Amino acid sequence: MKGKRIMAENLTVSGLVATTPRHLTTADGVAITSFRLASSNRRFDRTAGKWVDGETNWYTITAFRQLGINVADSVNKGDRIIVQGVLRVRDWDNGERAGTSVEIEAEAVGHDLTWGTSVFTRTVLVRDEPELLTV
Amino acid sequence: MKGKRIMAENLTVSGLVATTPRHLTTADGVAITSFRLASSNRRFDRTAGKWVDGETNWYTITAFRQLGINVADSVNKGDRIIVQGVLRVRDWDNGERAGTSVEIEAEAVGHDLTWGTSVFTRTVLVRDEPELLTV
Amino acid sequence: MKGKRIMAENLTVSGLVATTPRHLTTADGVAITSFRLASSNRRFDRTAGKWVDGETNWYTITAFRQLGINVADSVNKGDRIIVQGVLRVRDWDNGERAGTSVEIEAEAVGHDLTWGTSVFTRTVLVRDEPELLTV
Amino acid sequence: MKGKRIMAENLTVSGLVATTPRHLTTADGVAITSFRLASSNRRFDRTAGKWVDGETNWYTITAFRQLGINVADSVNKGDRIIVQGVLRVRDWDNGERAGTSVEIEAEAVGHDLTWGTSVFTRTVLVRDEPELLTV
Repeated sequence: MKGKRIMAENLTVSGLVATTPRHLTTADGVAITSFRLASSNRRFDRTAGKWVDGETNWYTITAFRQLGINVADSVNKGDRIIVQGVLRVRDWDNGERAGTSVEIEAEAVGHDLTWGTSVFTRTVLVRDEPELLTV
Repeated sequence: MKGKRIMAENLTVSGLVATTPRHLTTADGVAITSFRLASSNRRFDRTAGKWVDGETNWYTITAFRQLGINVADSVNKGDRIIVQGVLRVRDWDNGERAGTSVEIEAEAVGHDLTWGTSVFTRTVLVRDEPELLTV
Repeated sequence: MKGKRIMAENLTVSGLVATTPRHLTTADGVAITSFRLASSNRRFDRTAGKWVDGETNWYTITAFRQLGINVADSVNKGDRIIVQGVLRVRDWDNGERAGTSVEIEAEAVGHDLTWGTSVFTRTVLVRDEPELLTV
Repeated sequence: MKGKRIMAENLTVSGLVATTPRHLTTADGVAITSFRLASSNRRFDRTAGKWVDGETNWYTITAFRQLGINVADSVNKGDRIIVQGVLRVRDWDNGERAGTSVEIEAEAVGHDLTWGTSVFTRTVLVRDEPELLTV
């Protein structure tokens, strides 16, 4: 029954890149880029009758393989981005301290054009797309 | 009771920009940019035991104000993008023909770094962000 | 590259069941239940400074297999429900007329407790859950 | 600019109610119900070529007002439910210990009909719905 579930908690976050992205390659050749993202949301204060700043959610964003490489080449601290991915909430304990990490494994990342402009250079070519472009 | 609902159907789509974005400004000065987006998804064929191409969803994407201006300056036909926004399903009838339109009013748009790299230039400055950058 | 995409457009809708669910079993034994769902959303009118009714999105909801059976047994016209599933936007043409259908293939459906109470009877038992219940 | 943002991180989770819901009313009369939810997701193991159990995400679910009352009347430990709401990731420090909490403020909750059947009793009546029911 559970085998039919193919969805994990997928969410989309818009926020500010708060740390310089760190890029590394694992021993078996997988590219990984990670950074911290801060998302401040607005909420409507019914008493005050206006929008006010809400609290900030903090996430660790991780991007793998080609997405990881392109994020490392494109994203800088202070950028405004949009991230779609899978949420992972993990308890950790390193013997000295314990805590909870909140991570998003990115499936798509882009600079948020709400806040600026971007120049895009395609690095991945796909043979089966031309038909869509003939519309 | 319904007054507490502040969420409409919000969704995130990754796809291919299939038409050249059209940009216009309304009589009362609101910038609007719109284009068609094609999203082809993969699905797991349990009989074949592998991933196969699924069908394509088509959307009309509309971006307003500053986001509309930046999309017009940044997004081209053939680009791979990620869009977060509110879904609107509308029946229309122009007297001659009738149909259903499926539109997403964008809240955030970005080039999808899964498919390439981007150079971002910030156009919107916000006074209350420096604190986030000190982390 | 596209092979890594396992997510289609997933969305969640809260709305009103607007037609009596129709239940059938295909020739090869798959249970299917479908109905129409209306989702009216609220939006904040900045000119008026208050929340107003937005327009209504209409969807055809389809549920398969065990979920389809349980929906047929539980959901009635007029109920308020929440549906999570995959969006499918399809153009159709039956020779006489053509149009666009907007369908959600449900992955989860439940009565929305914002609007009432429900009594749940479990029909699916899973061996690997007890560990979660010991928390 | 940020004032236009009306969306926080909204997500939908299907999972198992892992603790008995606690219901209380604040000094100023607001009903609150909260419990822990465990969400185990399946992932496709490309090496093994099959679906395997993924790790479990844990959330504290909080429901307010009428939704809180109905959840307290309807939801029990061991139930399978679907929750849509706003994600809040908070660091806390009580002087002795510090940590991170991951909470979802529910906007909609329902028993997941993938796992059973439910009998719904409406407690909230709305005057503006009959038009939808005439379809």
